[in-house]
Amino acid sequence: MAALPQVVIVGGGFAGLYLAKGLKGAPVQVTLVDRRNHHLFQPMLYQVATAALNPSDIASPIRSILRRQRNVEVVLGDVERIDVAARCARLTDGTSVSYDYCAVAPGARHSYFGRGEWEALAPGLKSLEDALEVRRRIFLAFEHAERETDVQRRQQLLTFVVVGGGPTGVEVAGALAEIRRFALARDFRHIDPREATVVLLEAGPRILAAYPPELSHRAKTDLRRLGVEVRENTLVTMIHPNAVEAAGWRIPTNTVVWAAGNQASPLLATLGVPLDRQGRVIVEHDCSVPGHPEVLVLGDAAAFNDDKIGGLVPAVCPAAIQMGQYAARAIRASVAGQTRRPFHYWNKGELAVIGRGDAVANLPGLRFGGFFAWLIWIVLHITYLIGFRNRVLVLIQWAWSYVTYARGARLITGDIGPGSR
Amino acid sequence: MAALPQVVIVGGGFAGLYLAKGLKGAPVQVTLVDRRNHHLFQPMLYQVATAALNPSDIASPIRSILRRQRNVEVVLGDVERIDVAARCARLTDGTSVSYDYCAVAPGARHSYFGRGEWEALAPGLKSLEDALEVRRRIFLAFEHAERETDVQRRQQLLTFVVVGGGPTGVEVAGALAEIRRFALARDFRHIDPREATVVLLEAGPRILAAYPPELSHRAKTDLRRLGVEVRENTLVTMIHPNAVEAAGWRIPTNTVVWAAGNQASPLLATLGVPLDRQGRVIVEHDCSVPGHPEVLVLGDAAAFNDDKIGGLVPAVCPAAIQMGQYAARAIRASVAGQTRRPFHYWNKGELAVIGRGDAVANLPGLRFGGFFAWLIWIVLHITYLIGFRNRVLVLIQWAWSYVTYARGARLITGDIGPGSR
Repeated sequence: MAALPQVVIVGGGFAGLYLAKGLKGAPVQVTLVDRRNHHLFQPMLYQVATAALNPSDIASPIRSILRRQRNVEVVLGDVERIDVAARCARLTDGTSVSYDYCAVAPGARHSYFGRGEWEALAPGLKSLEDALEVRRRIFLAFEHAERETDVQRRQQLLTFVVVGGGPTGVEVAGALAEIRRFALARDFRHIDPREATVVLLEAGPRILAAYPPELSHRAKTDLRRLGVEVRENTLVTMIHPNAVEAAGWRIPTNTVVWAAGNQASPLLATLGVPLDRQGRVIVEHDCSVPGHPEVLVLGDAAAFNDDKIGGLVPAVCPAAIQMGQYAARAIRASVAGQTRRPFHYWNKGELAVIGRGDAVANLPGLRFGGFFAWLIWIVLHITYLIGFRNRVLVLIQWAWSYVTYARGARLITGDIGPGSR
Repeated sequence: MAALPQVVIVGGGFAGLYLAKGLKGAPVQVTLVDRRNHHLFQPMLYQVATAALNPSDIASPIRSILRRQRNVEVVLGDVERIDVAARCARLTDGTSVSYDYCAVAPGARHSYFGRGEWEALAPGLKSLEDALEVRRRIFLAFEHAERETDVQRRQQLLTFVVVGGGPTGVEVAGALAEIRRFALARDFRHIDPREATVVLLEAGPRILAAYPPELSHRAKTDLRRLGVEVRENTLVTMIHPNAVEAAGWRIPTNTVVWAAGNQASPLLATLGVPLDRQGRVIVEHDCSVPGHPEVLVLGDAAAFNDDKIGGLVPAVCPAAIQMGQYAARAIRASVAGQTRRPFHYWNKGELAVIGRGDAVANLPGLRFGGFFAWLIWIVLHITYLIGFRNRVLVLIQWAWSYVTYARGARLITGDIGPGSR
């Protein structure tokens, strides 16, 4: 019996996971390699950062998700290089995994636009570690403010700046405004958390730039009603430990959350093909690397020009899922000696949450905001959440938060720091 | 109007928290200082370490618990010295809090019996950070074993040693045996987690030494049925990164959990009074420091000789709760110009969990083991858990684990390490 074709998947995010699932029962042997042991439901990471959900509510061990799929093996490891000549993925621990087909879906990190030193001052939201760090900073700021006697420093501690007005930035700013108004309102003796300031900075002319202008406007109005200061056309020029400078403004703050840009994984550079400005591989119509039909690049790592939508496929979850599903069909076709049909992105619409019971929806032929948009968001996201257990628990936790305005996961772990002193 | 007497409580564990609650409505002003923002339900910490529960299931912000009690202020801070002469608690950030009455309840850390260097090799279970570190090591060991080709090193990675046969050690060993047999059984391709070895080492002649001999025997039998190797009279003499030496044995292992001894907080030494071998203050019959009736020492920090039980009050939660409640009555009496009645510990019995649906119960006049003991444990612990939300969620999560044998919180965060290579 000839050995089955080997498929190596790098990354257990949406693209990698849906590819693995799509190869169920296919005549191939799959190895999925990830640096983490868990698949992360990134769109809800901001809920961990703002203490509404627990890490395990939005993450499941990849191994468990794929437990019953006998042609898949999961490896916890860090791929440092794809050797397209030798057809193998090389890991940092010195081992390597050979492939007949390789799918590279390592996701993206934040881009600080050449100012890497800002990362320590303004963490972003990509991993669970990121979210726990942001959570720690937010709740420590309130604790330190409670003990601060200097009025100006106290106000600085109670100022939260979110950089980037995309969906993540909007969601974080809205959640911060709600923590301040509801969850913490009665907890302190010396400060009134409702006096905290939340500022959302957007470099472009409007927030939610990918949405139609009327929804951007709606989101801005709703955020302002929640008490968020929304500043558009405000490019951040400098981040200090105790202030942000942007478009001539100087905002004293100790807590900055970064939601302003993506930079694809450095792993892609090892493929030896042209990358775009964000470091993504400019892929062919079957998501493959030019000249290497056996290597596919998926998800946030791919710059896919879709002529049907007249531009790049956006770096969103549904696109990653569709690419993963497509890649499974493409590999099955190649194994069967058939030709691949090109990939096309099917835009089913976008949703962004603003606050408790409020979201904006940009669906095909339908644009609206408010409670009904939020309901759709909840239902969709719970349906997507992988693993039944998570779905039920998350629903209960949300229902509880909604009724009580409480934040269940408000734990500060790690260093409590020196405060502002 | 004269200022109200100031009460400073150091530590928001069981003793500190129940003292604060006991002072509700009393004519005093209370300041509770803790290094953490959360109260931790320590008896269930092993369930976080073994991924059955989430950190926030067993921890609540102290601030939230005491939110409605207007005479209490909560301070996140680290007390480095009690200045009994100046009557103030000095914090590491340079500030201090003056008191008329001070209750010192900082809890305990592990004792490595003079081998502090073992701590990095064999973490214990006192804080959430400890539990997450143990969880990380346990699940990483399985991941690294899956990738290890050398049979001997693989077996070493799949050997888990628990040091100390008290209730915590028994609970951790039992939970490890169950993870191995049920939660992980189908997740791997190259290893069979059921082949993992769990060793419980006890230096004394029997595990659960505080229980009657027949319950120790019952626990040992039940643990052995779960597949735990129980070794009594086995004092650990050395811990290496890849082995434990004990009573002539050498056990190759990469994962050691320490549950073998307590050392009271170094803060107690600043009181300038005699301490016992574990660093605890030898307190008077009203829990006060000799010569300082205004300073009480509570919980694990106190060596309280109770003539009614003919020995020291044990370092267990119920004792800490009772001391906290007593201290509230004592301070109320002093404020009212009345004399204090001596403290006495009321031993309501002890319970230790062995595994799924199995525990031993040592109740007054009643000693038994099995499912019914486990049911009592569950009901009692959920009743004690502070905060209604936690109770409901924990119950659901347990019910889920019980039905499916799953472990919901199996996340590895932080460094994935170099493995055994």
